[in-house]
Amino acid sequence: MALRVSVLGAGSWGTTVAALASRNVPTVLWARRAETADEVNRAHTNERYLPKLSLPHALRATGSLEEAVSDADVIVMGVPSHSMRSTLVEVKKHARPWVPVVSLAKGLEQGSHLRMTQVINEVLPDRRAGVLTGPNLAREIMSGLAAASVLAIDDEMIARQLQDAFHSGMFRVYTNRDVAGCELGGALKNVIAIAVGMGDGLGVGDNTRSAVITRGLAEMTRLGVALGGRADTFAGLAGMGDLIATCISPQSRNRHVGEQLGRGKTIDEITAAMHMVAEGVKTTRVVLELAEQHDLAMPIAREVFGVLYEGASARAAYRGLVRTRPGDEAEPG
Amino acid sequence: MALRVSVLGAGSWGTTVAALASRNVPTVLWARRAETADEVNRAHTNERYLPKLSLPHALRATGSLEEAVSDADVIVMGVPSHSMRSTLVEVKKHARPWVPVVSLAKGLEQGSHLRMTQVINEVLPDRRAGVLTGPNLAREIMSGLAAASVLAIDDEMIARQLQDAFHSGMFRVYTNRDVAGCELGGALKNVIAIAVGMGDGLGVGDNTRSAVITRGLAEMTRLGVALGGRADTFAGLAGMGDLIATCISPQSRNRHVGEQLGRGKTIDEITAAMHMVAEGVKTTRVVLELAEQHDLAMPIAREVFGVLYEGASARAAYRGLVRTRPGDEAEPG
Repeated sequence: MALRVSVLGAGSWGTTVAALASRNVPTVLWARRAETADEVNRAHTNERYLPKLSLPHALRATGSLEEAVSDADVIVMGVPSHSMRSTLVEVKKHARPWVPVVSLAKGLEQGSHLRMTQVINEVLPDRRAGVLTGPNLAREIMSGLAAASVLAIDDEMIARQLQDAFHSGMFRVYTNRDVAGCELGGALKNVIAIAVGMGDGLGVGDNTRSAVITRGLAEMTRLGVALGGRADTFAGLAGMGDLIATCISPQSRNRHVGEQLGRGKTIDEITAAMHMVAEGVKTTRVVLELAEQHDLAMPIAREVFGVLYEGASARAAYRGLVRTRPGDEAEPG
Repeated sequence: MALRVSVLGAGSWGTTVAALASRNVPTVLWARRAETADEVNRAHTNERYLPKLSLPHALRATGSLEEAVSDADVIVMGVPSHSMRSTLVEVKKHARPWVPVVSLAKGLEQGSHLRMTQVINEVLPDRRAGVLTGPNLAREIMSGLAAASVLAIDDEMIARQLQDAFHSGMFRVYTNRDVAGCELGGALKNVIAIAVGMGDGLGVGDNTRSAVITRGLAEMTRLGVALGGRADTFAGLAGMGDLIATCISPQSRNRHVGEQLGRGKTIDEITAAMHMVAEGVKTTRVVLELAEQHDLAMPIAREVFGVLYEGASARAAYRGLVRTRPGDEAEPG
């Protein structure tokens, strides 16, 4: 019997993952807005988040969370990190026993500092929680371009079955047992993407861009390992791969936020003009709190924080990054 | 007494390094073509390699290798890897005792498989050999944009003095004691850059581009560690940093070669149309020989070799990279 997949959240990435799964197994997409569900069912499009792209006819959508969840064998959480917990509370009322829950969100919970699988485990302690992450620009995948992704869940049997549900010739799903590392890679890279975007807005060039990406990955890895991730996960698709795709793509929201900051806009102006969530904005605050707690130097995240929350200019932030005299490469900064 | 620096080779990078040093210390640039030396001295330009950019008036050039070498306190080798040994044989006739030799070339010697500092040590066994490497697109630096670089030489006192000779506010020179790793990073990334360029020519998108860069760094690191480099060097500016800059910049020659291959041109057509050397073309052969010798899987380099030397198409190479079914992320391929 085929797994029935439900994807909750019809943003660009949730819709894309649902479209991928619908080619392999029966798949339902839950949209918070009833009009979006109707549009997916009737026109096979989601113009708000994936303009001008067609969705598979096999993909069915619903505006009812109960309908989406009560029949699902796998629940995929495509909502942003700030609404993860409240959505899970609703999921809990309808989900069948054993059903694993896979997060697509690339952020950390404000206040609690928890990863999304930890939030899942708190609300639904009796199920396996995993994450699907990697260098996955939604629009490219929906346009038929190839991509590789990582599925991390601490259960080999479930991992293999979920791999089959999502995998295709153009969407290669690797497995990884390091759930914490995979999740942290996806969340932390958004902070570095904001820094790289600021540089793009300032016109700093590809030499500096690659240096910030490189030093940024070192920063992410330091914190990620302190929080229980494995260093080699950060060197893989869920760390470096996702970081690079996010930092070089014009489609990345977090890089876009940084670029606008680099051009002198304020974060309030920028977020008001977007109808998507840039997870990195809130994650930066969590990262700074975690860095302090673990006594780690994170100079790039610190400069991003200054621009987002303390009124510093992007230009001053880039000057800050080159302030200290360089010594041996192994030192931070 | 200030160090006197001589840079041998007036290509784009040799000229740029000489320009940087000339702001700190007396610097001479040796050009193989007398007209280039005249142009640098009279017009303060090098139109062939750095069109439309001005050089510092303090930079002096000469067409005489003897003149350049006999007074130098530091000799910087800005010639391509295939003419490194023959140029060093000339250098040997005129160089003063103790004078260290720093390589800028990012290739390995054909046949011998030696790194450039090993070639220096063979021809000039009585001196320190080092390398200056990193994410350093010449044109950006000459345009006044900031960049970071790595100086690797196995002598702390010399490293500090050379750091002072090259360092400026906009060109940050870090030191690193891992000479082998730094050199191998610069050489091996050119092979991956050809692979990434092929993808650009085929239009594979940023998801795949970042995946190839990520898996490519893993490949480089495996071989680099087997050859005596340190893994963390490959995660730094001389490895990952240089790799990313080369793979995302339209200015990179090796990426350009790959892009033309991706568009269906042959390597002979491409090299005939360039007046600069793309080191990766020859390095790919050396890398394959070394991989075989050390029994390492290097699937990306293998596909590049097929396109360069066995008549395979770039499209077939990219299909080859996605041929096997993905398993755990830690496995090669």
